[in-house]
Amino acid sequence: MKLQSYALGQWSEGKTEGTNLLDASNGNLIGSVCSKGLDFGEMLDFGRRIGNKNLRNMTFHERARALKALALHLLEHKERFYTISYQTGATKIDSWIDIEGGIGNLFVYSSKGRRELPNEKFLVDGAPEHLSKNGTFLGHHIWTPKRGCAVHINAFNFPVWGMLEKIAVNILAGMPAIVKPATATSYLTEVVFREIIDSKLLPEGSLQLVMGSASGILDHATSSDVITFTGSAHTGRMLKSHENILNHNIPFNLEADSLNASILGPDAKPGTPEFDLFVKEVSKEMTIKAGQKCTAIRRIIIPSESVEEVSKALSARLEKVTIGDPRNKDVRMGPLASLDQREEVLAKISELRNECELIYGGSLPKEILGADADKGAFVSPTLLLCQDPMKASAVHSTEAFGPVSTIIPYNSTEEAIEFAHMGGGSLVSSVVTHDNEFATEIVLETASSHGRMLVLNRDCAKESTGHGSPMPQLVHGGPGRAGGGEEMGGIRGVHHYMQRTAIQGHPTTLTALTNVYQPGSEQLDPGTHPFRKYFEELRIGDTHQTHKRTITETDIVNFANVSWDHFYAHTDTTSLEGTIFEKRVAHGYFIISAAAGLFVDPGKGPVLANYGLDELRFIKPVYAGATISVKLTCKEKIDQEAREGEEPRGVVKWQVEVSDETDEVVALATILTLVAKKN
Amino acid sequence: MKLQSYALGQWSEGKTEGTNLLDASNGNLIGSVCSKGLDFGEMLDFGRRIGNKNLRNMTFHERARALKALALHLLEHKERFYTISYQTGATKIDSWIDIEGGIGNLFVYSSKGRRELPNEKFLVDGAPEHLSKNGTFLGHHIWTPKRGCAVHINAFNFPVWGMLEKIAVNILAGMPAIVKPATATSYLTEVVFREIIDSKLLPEGSLQLVMGSASGILDHATSSDVITFTGSAHTGRMLKSHENILNHNIPFNLEADSLNASILGPDAKPGTPEFDLFVKEVSKEMTIKAGQKCTAIRRIIIPSESVEEVSKALSARLEKVTIGDPRNKDVRMGPLASLDQREEVLAKISELRNECELIYGGSLPKEILGADADKGAFVSPTLLLCQDPMKASAVHSTEAFGPVSTIIPYNSTEEAIEFAHMGGGSLVSSVVTHDNEFATEIVLETASSHGRMLVLNRDCAKESTGHGSPMPQLVHGGPGRAGGGEEMGGIRGVHHYMQRTAIQGHPTTLTALTNVYQPGSEQLDPGTHPFRKYFEELRIGDTHQTHKRTITETDIVNFANVSWDHFYAHTDTTSLEGTIFEKRVAHGYFIISAAAGLFVDPGKGPVLANYGLDELRFIKPVYAGATISVKLTCKEKIDQEAREGEEPRGVVKWQVEVSDETDEVVALATILTLVAKKN
Repeated sequence: MKLQSYALGQWSEGKTEGTNLLDASNGNLIGSVCSKGLDFGEMLDFGRRIGNKNLRNMTFHERARALKALALHLLEHKERFYTISYQTGATKIDSWIDIEGGIGNLFVYSSKGRRELPNEKFLVDGAPEHLSKNGTFLGHHIWTPKRGCAVHINAFNFPVWGMLEKIAVNILAGMPAIVKPATATSYLTEVVFREIIDSKLLPEGSLQLVMGSASGILDHATSSDVITFTGSAHTGRMLKSHENILNHNIPFNLEADSLNASILGPDAKPGTPEFDLFVKEVSKEMTIKAGQKCTAIRRIIIPSESVEEVSKALSARLEKVTIGDPRNKDVRMGPLASLDQREEVLAKISELRNECELIYGGSLPKEILGADADKGAFVSPTLLLCQDPMKASAVHSTEAFGPVSTIIPYNSTEEAIEFAHMGGGSLVSSVVTHDNEFATEIVLETASSHGRMLVLNRDCAKESTGHGSPMPQLVHGGPGRAGGGEEMGGIRGVHHYMQRTAIQGHPTTLTALTNVYQPGSEQLDPGTHPFRKYFEELRIGDTHQTHKRTITETDIVNFANVSWDHFYAHTDTTSLEGTIFEKRVAHGYFIISAAAGLFVDPGKGPVLANYGLDELRFIKPVYAGATISVKLTCKEKIDQEAREGEEPRGVVKWQVEVSDETDEVVALATILTLVAKKN
Repeated sequence: MKLQSYALGQWSEGKTEGTNLLDASNGNLIGSVCSKGLDFGEMLDFGRRIGNKNLRNMTFHERARALKALALHLLEHKERFYTISYQTGATKIDSWIDIEGGIGNLFVYSSKGRRELPNEKFLVDGAPEHLSKNGTFLGHHIWTPKRGCAVHINAFNFPVWGMLEKIAVNILAGMPAIVKPATATSYLTEVVFREIIDSKLLPEGSLQLVMGSASGILDHATSSDVITFTGSAHTGRMLKSHENILNHNIPFNLEADSLNASILGPDAKPGTPEFDLFVKEVSKEMTIKAGQKCTAIRRIIIPSESVEEVSKALSARLEKVTIGDPRNKDVRMGPLASLDQREEVLAKISELRNECELIYGGSLPKEILGADADKGAFVSPTLLLCQDPMKASAVHSTEAFGPVSTIIPYNSTEEAIEFAHMGGGSLVSSVVTHDNEFATEIVLETASSHGRMLVLNRDCAKESTGHGSPMPQLVHGGPGRAGGGEEMGGIRGVHHYMQRTAIQGHPTTLTALTNVYQPGSEQLDPGTHPFRKYFEELRIGDTHQTHKRTITETDIVNFANVSWDHFYAHTDTTSLEGTIFEKRVAHGYFIISAAAGLFVDPGKGPVLANYGLDELRFIKPVYAGATISVKLTCKEKIDQEAREGEEPRGVVKWQVEVSDETDEVVALATILTLVAKKN
């Protein structure tokens, strides 16, 4: 069977014979792939012209809803994906990470898109920057989607997650993508991709798929595109050095395998919960996906006095790992993805053995359940010990991309820190300790070499997501050896597909540009009290100037009575010496309450509730005799999806500026209300 | 005179003859530079071992104070810098941008560092990420300084600003730098650099200086270093393609000259203030620094019906620009930086003339005040017109780095947008219009090709900082042709010298790591009411559980009386149908006031004032009969410098959690207090 690519909105198969794809356990032929005949230039152009236009004309919320629908759709088909996933050598648990982990990313990005992003096509970044004395010239920043197409060149180890973790982000950002899965396991990607297309949940041009070689695609990239690569450091280097990438400063995000470490704390002696957690975590990371994870633990950094006990405990656990055909329920570890991969892993083991002692494994497994060592890419979990890690080099730089890890003993915290850095930049390291001081020292002193760090102890172990699992909420990527890239991290990832632009101009211009009221911007006459206006009717800048109120000593006393807040500054005139208050001062909470008393329009109307308040600042003390008034300005409108049974409504943020009779501002705040929609 | 480099804490001059540096106006010999004998590997190593350690062991506030002291010190010596600056061909106004603009960057970063960053050695990024159901496993992000050394390879046009805008940022981030100024104007950089060293305001190893060639320095860089380059796209490309940079994923920030545009709005017809502003801004950008600015306007995009009037008005203004020796007070435009630069600019003009018509200038100036055309690098302001910009190519890609700009007529908004993008990525574009709808369309549709966009109109013109001025508060850099880099942008720039790391663990661990109370973290017994503890005595996590208060209808009525807030939900039981309230509800502001009534310890003590409140959310309506109590937790401590005459104190943020008798949270907030220090 020839597997098909999806280009320019059409499925098509390659023009020549192609590469055969084989089952990792038994070598059975699955199908063949070939990309001959695809016009990569046209594909990129199609993505830019059609997909980009369709996606960038949707709002973040619309894109987020599409992601959720897609996640639900894929979940319905997951059993089929699991069945096919066995062919890659993955056990059921391995496949869960790949398939449901991948779908989980769509859910997280959908939820974050709706909760953390506005219902707009662009993003406002940070706070306004005051660039002038009189306030007529302001600066700000916005993010807009890049006008190109993403090209994702993915690794073979997570054919589903690898695709979904990336497209969740580019789609939410408003950019289309061309997905190029690693050929060896592309048949699984193809099945999931086909479901995405068949679901018709994404607009035309959002996604295209290259099955087989994508050689030459980078010739057609431009600086509005974004290239991502996940895989070996060697291939990544080659791709990012492509002339076109360099000549046109094309964004290239590289995520490469690294020599991730796990560090055992000196407190975590044999017999402690942390010692057991450590042994369990390391052996799990060595054997899940047969160690074919860019985040797997390659370096086991432990106190030198614990070498013997860790070696023994780990070997005992590895001994229990049943190896064989992943379809067999008793099997805990399947084969590597291909016989080529096995060759490579065995070669790397022998390289490592030049400076390490073999503790466990080292070659093919003694026993293989339901499969044949000649046809399946099986290899034994392999544990090594490096006695002189300060002088060693391979152990800090050679990665056997399989179930292979090396024990590295340390004699002081400084040494442990040094070894962690010697990986030259890693995706992740973990520290297993119940001593938060040790954890803090290790993390703060080694974070600069890491994209993610996990501190594991008895208190979090039950709910820990583990050393090896990148989370959509957290950044994934690392400096140096790990590629220097960054992915996911919640909304942080969305920025990789957008351009940040500083904007400057009159505040009224920036209000028009950002749809958020900017300080100094023109204030509009709302015509009526703004609490009488429905969500759709309110304009950014609508401003209500209230009547006034003279604050009396009676007010301060009454407020102390009703609130029970008897703080001396409000109630005890004998204690004010040496304080910042000249006289008995009105409670700050009274000032904001009295402000509400002035700005609220009491009768029932479109404003449903005041549900919160942000950035309230008491700027000037208010004493009895002062007269306050309030300016209430419509600052921002956030459109919301109506939940079932709810009245259609949106969030309106109001700027509240309380001034006294000298026109000085005494308090500032942003209040949050729910406002009904007219329709 | 041989100018000296500063390496390994020592001044030294080159071992061989070196390159002669000449006055741009008259060709007089200024001195010579040569870097022969410098060991770049040792310099980088010195920066990493000594400078990095010294800087990263200071807090952000300590570094920020050093920047301010440095800025004040340099200001004292500015007259000397001005005198030397004339030799570069800069007029007094040109030099002001370079010298005082550069010192201004130090002030802005000092101020931002103290106001926007914590008094810590690391930065917490964003909000915690909830990764578990029961809350025992949490995620977060931190930034820590990279452990390497920055290498700044700077352009010849801003010998002072170019150095200061970059080192302000790397020093605030906690990283040292090696500065490599462009040779042609390095004599001015050297004088300023020497003042910095002599001031002794920065710790040892913070800064080193390479005078002359730095060829080979990139061979010694590692992935913990950061390389920045400002200059021509061609040289930038060459440097970033360096094998070591690619092989080790070394961060490389490129800021290259670009084909920046200024777009005149269709509303800005001759006779409008915007038409005049446009002509003034374009001619200013063409002639300041003799057009040798990476942000200068190269493409003048105007409505086709205004071609004649814009050409005429611009030519008339350019005609008035007096050219000559910048020491002469009547001179408005000096020479280019060198005769080589003049050769290059003239060559580029003739390239552009293949597709453009000459409107003004085009070769050497007719008149040169106080200087000689043979010895000084003078060239006339040159205005071109491109009649078919959609088919043209040089006009969108060839940059004459001098006082040269081309008029590009457009026939529709779509065309103007297309032309803006055809620059292939620019540092900045401006739109001159009094129509905010037009401005919004242009900005949102072209922002993806720009690092900065200015909207200029009559309302902001007086205070506008102009098209060509990068501001430390705003990002500087642009996609594609402009290099794909980003600098400054306030605190955003600091991130380029730090590594972002995701951290995961039990909330108590993350509290220890971040020094900020994380949700779910262990709560500590403060021993006494926490308002009785001084700043130094408070521990993150100190928690006070208050007594309780039953809310009555009388409270609600009394609060309505004292606040005057008569919103119907609190006062009118006949209007509640169809609302989210079942009964007359207590005012949200009453709940937070009553919470203060419970948590405040009234007598005079270390808590000096409650000056604000953040993220107050009313989570559950409170009705008469409910009984509330409060948990007050010390969340964050922000150390502050005592201002003159002030009692030593710090900011303490408290988490306020108000619950009802069912243990459900009814309101949440963070309150901000000033707390006295014991000492």
